[in-house]
Amino acid sequence: MRVKSDMASLTREKLAQAAALVAATDLDVWMTFVRETAEGGDPVLPLILEGGLTWQSALIVYRDGRKVAIVGNYDADPLAASGDWDDVVPYVQSIREPLTAAIPAGARVGLNFSESDDKADGLTHGMYRLLEGMLPDRQLVSAEPVVLALRGRKTPEEIRRMREAIQETDRLFADIAAFARFGRSEREVYDHVHALVKERGMSFSWDPAGDPIVNSGPNSMIGHGIPSAEIKIEEGHVFHVDLGITKDGYSSDIQRCWYVGTAVPEDVQAGMDAVNAAITAAAEALRPGQPGWTVDEAARSAIVAHGYPEYLHAVGHQVGRKAHDGGTLLGPRWERYGNSPLQAVQEDEVYTLELGVTLPGRGYIGIEEMVRVTSDGCEWLSERQLSMPCLA
Amino acid sequence: MRVKSDMASLTREKLAQAAALVAATDLDVWMTFVRETAEGGDPVLPLILEGGLTWQSALIVYRDGRKVAIVGNYDADPLAASGDWDDVVPYVQSIREPLTAAIPAGARVGLNFSESDDKADGLTHGMYRLLEGMLPDRQLVSAEPVVLALRGRKTPEEIRRMREAIQETDRLFADIAAFARFGRSEREVYDHVHALVKERGMSFSWDPAGDPIVNSGPNSMIGHGIPSAEIKIEEGHVFHVDLGITKDGYSSDIQRCWYVGTAVPEDVQAGMDAVNAAITAAAEALRPGQPGWTVDEAARSAIVAHGYPEYLHAVGHQVGRKAHDGGTLLGPRWERYGNSPLQAVQEDEVYTLELGVTLPGRGYIGIEEMVRVTSDGCEWLSERQLSMPCLA
Repeated sequence: MRVKSDMASLTREKLAQAAALVAATDLDVWMTFVRETAEGGDPVLPLILEGGLTWQSALIVYRDGRKVAIVGNYDADPLAASGDWDDVVPYVQSIREPLTAAIPAGARVGLNFSESDDKADGLTHGMYRLLEGMLPDRQLVSAEPVVLALRGRKTPEEIRRMREAIQETDRLFADIAAFARFGRSEREVYDHVHALVKERGMSFSWDPAGDPIVNSGPNSMIGHGIPSAEIKIEEGHVFHVDLGITKDGYSSDIQRCWYVGTAVPEDVQAGMDAVNAAITAAAEALRPGQPGWTVDEAARSAIVAHGYPEYLHAVGHQVGRKAHDGGTLLGPRWERYGNSPLQAVQEDEVYTLELGVTLPGRGYIGIEEMVRVTSDGCEWLSERQLSMPCLA
Repeated sequence: MRVKSDMASLTREKLAQAAALVAATDLDVWMTFVRETAEGGDPVLPLILEGGLTWQSALIVYRDGRKVAIVGNYDADPLAASGDWDDVVPYVQSIREPLTAAIPAGARVGLNFSESDDKADGLTHGMYRLLEGMLPDRQLVSAEPVVLALRGRKTPEEIRRMREAIQETDRLFADIAAFARFGRSEREVYDHVHALVKERGMSFSWDPAGDPIVNSGPNSMIGHGIPSAEIKIEEGHVFHVDLGITKDGYSSDIQRCWYVGTAVPEDVQAGMDAVNAAITAAAEALRPGQPGWTVDEAARSAIVAHGYPEYLHAVGHQVGRKAHDGGTLLGPRWERYGNSPLQAVQEDEVYTLELGVTLPGRGYIGIEEMVRVTSDGCEWLSERQLSMPCLA
C-alpha cells in the first residue's frame, strides 16, 4: 500500500514525457483537475503523482515544459517535497484565483475527457462545469492524444515491471494446475488463487469479484461471471482461467486452458489450433502505424476461416497499470468502441492478443497472450500456450 | 476482496431506498451511467451493485420503483443472478438502442453530476457527452438530491458496520499508545499501523500513503503529510494521530493525541480543553434541519472565544463507505465547499466533529470524534477523548 521510493523516478520520467507530448500538440497547457482522489479519481493521476489530493486540485503541464500544481494547503508539502513540480501553489478558501492566474485568457487547455476512452476520461462532469465557470475565455478541449500516448507508450521501467507481473502470473498458473483436479469447484480454484495473491502481497488487475474468471465445462458462465461453487471440474471438460494481477503498480492479463481427462479429443485439439492460428494472425498484423481494427480483422477472419463463429469482443486491448488500460484497441469498428479501433498502433504499447471458441459439451477454449509493439512488429511478453495440457 | 454474501441484502435495501427517493423528486428516472469500473468508477456504484461493469452500462431506477440494468453481454449473468433488478438487458455492439428504448423522449433524467459534491459526481464528462448524443429530447439534470440522501442516510446495517469500524480503530489507538515512545519516528508508528491493518484484513479509509497521519512535535507536517522517518517522538511534544480504517465496506475517521512527558503542561491542557469545548459546541448545534454551516460556526466561535485561531477546514464531514463521504458538510461558507455547507442535516447521517490548535514548541492538538444524527440531536459513536494521556 505504501508509496515506493522508486515511484519518484517513475512520476518524474512520465512528467518529462508529458511535457514533450504537450509540445507536439496545439495545446497551450494540459491540465488534470481532480478532488478527493482517495476513491479512485482520474486514471492518469498515478502516472504523474504519488499519493492523493483532497480539495480541488489542478496539475498543469505547459507546452514549454513548466509544471505547476495548485492544491489545497494541506496537500502542498508532500508535492513540494517530491521535487517533481516547478511550482506548488497552495490555497485555503478557493482555487479560483490561483487557477485563473495560471491559465491565461485565450489559452487552449487540454482536459481529461474522452467519449471513447475511459482512461482519458477522468474529469467528471461536475468538475468540467466548475471549470467552465472559473475559466471563461479559454478553449476547453480534450487532451486525449496526450493522455493516451502518456499511458500507452511504456518506458523501460514500466516494461520491466510488467515482465515481473507476467512472471508472477505464470507462477500462479503453475499453482492452479497443481491444485485443480476432479471434483474441485470453480469457486475453490478462485479462492485458492485469492489466498496465494494475498500471501504474495499482490493485487488483482480488474475487479477481484471476477478475477480470476474460472470456467469448467459447458455450463459455466463465460466472461466476467462469478466462479460457481456448484460447478465442479469433471472429465471431458475444458477448464479455462482468465487471470490478471498487479505488482508494483503494473499489471498482467492472461488466459490459459486445460483439458480434463487423459487424452485431448480431436474437437478440442482443432479448437485450440484454430484459436492459436487466429492469435498468430493478429501478431503478424501488429506493428506501428496499423489501425487497431486491422489487427482484429486478421484474427477474426482466421477464426471464421477455421469454421468457428466470430468472438464478441476485441482481439486485444492495452495493458499497463490495469488489465484494461485504454487507448488504441485491437477491436472491430463497433459503435460501443468509439474511435479506439481507428487509432494507430504505436511502438512500446503493450497489448493482449486473446480469443476463444465454445465447444458444445466441452466448454470454452480461451487463450490470451501479451505482446509489446516493437519498431517493426511485436515481441511476446508471455510464453505462448500452443498445446493443451491434460488435467486429471 | 471477495463479495460477501450479506452484500446482496445491502444493495437490495439501498435500491429500495433509492426508488423511494426518486419518487420524492421531480425525476422520471435516476440513471447511473458507467464503464470499466475496475479503476474506481462512480462512487455510488457499491451501494447498488456487487462487483464491476466493463462496457458502457446504465443502471436505471424509475419513479414507479422499477429497476433496469442495461449492460454488456458478459456482465449480464451476475446481475441477473443477484435478483436485484427487474430486468437485465444485455447488448453486444452498442448500448444506444436499448438505452433509447428505456428512456422515453421528454423524460427528466437524473444523472450523477454535481459541482459541489464529489460523491454525487461520478459521471465523467466524456460519458455525459455520449449521453447528450444518444438521448436527444430528454432533460439531463443533476441527481444530487437522490444520490446524497442515498449515501448519507444510513440504514441500521450500515450503522452496525460503522460501529465495528470504530471499535477496530479504538483497538488500533490502544496498539499505537503501547508502541509509541521516545525515539520512535513518525514513520515507524505509521509502518506499525500498516502491519496491524494488513494482519487484521482491513483497509484504509483514505489514501494509505497518508493514513494514518502521524505528527510528533512542532516540526511535523500537519494535514495530509507523509509521516517522516526523521522526526522522532521527543519529550515535550504533542503526539497526534489521525486514522481511518474500512471494514466490510464501511469506514471510521478519528483523531487522538497524547502528551510526551510525565505531566501535561498548562498550555497543552488549555489547548485540549478549548478543542473539546468547540467540539461540544458543535455537537450541541447538530440536529436535523440545521444547515451545515451553523454547526461549524458554533465550533468556530467557541475556539476563537478561547483565544485560538480559526481552523482552516470544516468542523465535520460525513463518513460512510469512505472517510470523506460527501453530502452536507459542517463547514464554513467558503467557495471551495460549494453548496455543501448550505444543505440541511438529516437524521441517520454520520459526521465527524474535528478540529485542532497548534501550540508553539509543542505541536498539534487535534481531536476528531464521530456522531450519528438522531431525531432531535446526535449520539456519540466514538468514545470522546476529553483528557490528554501521557506517553513516555
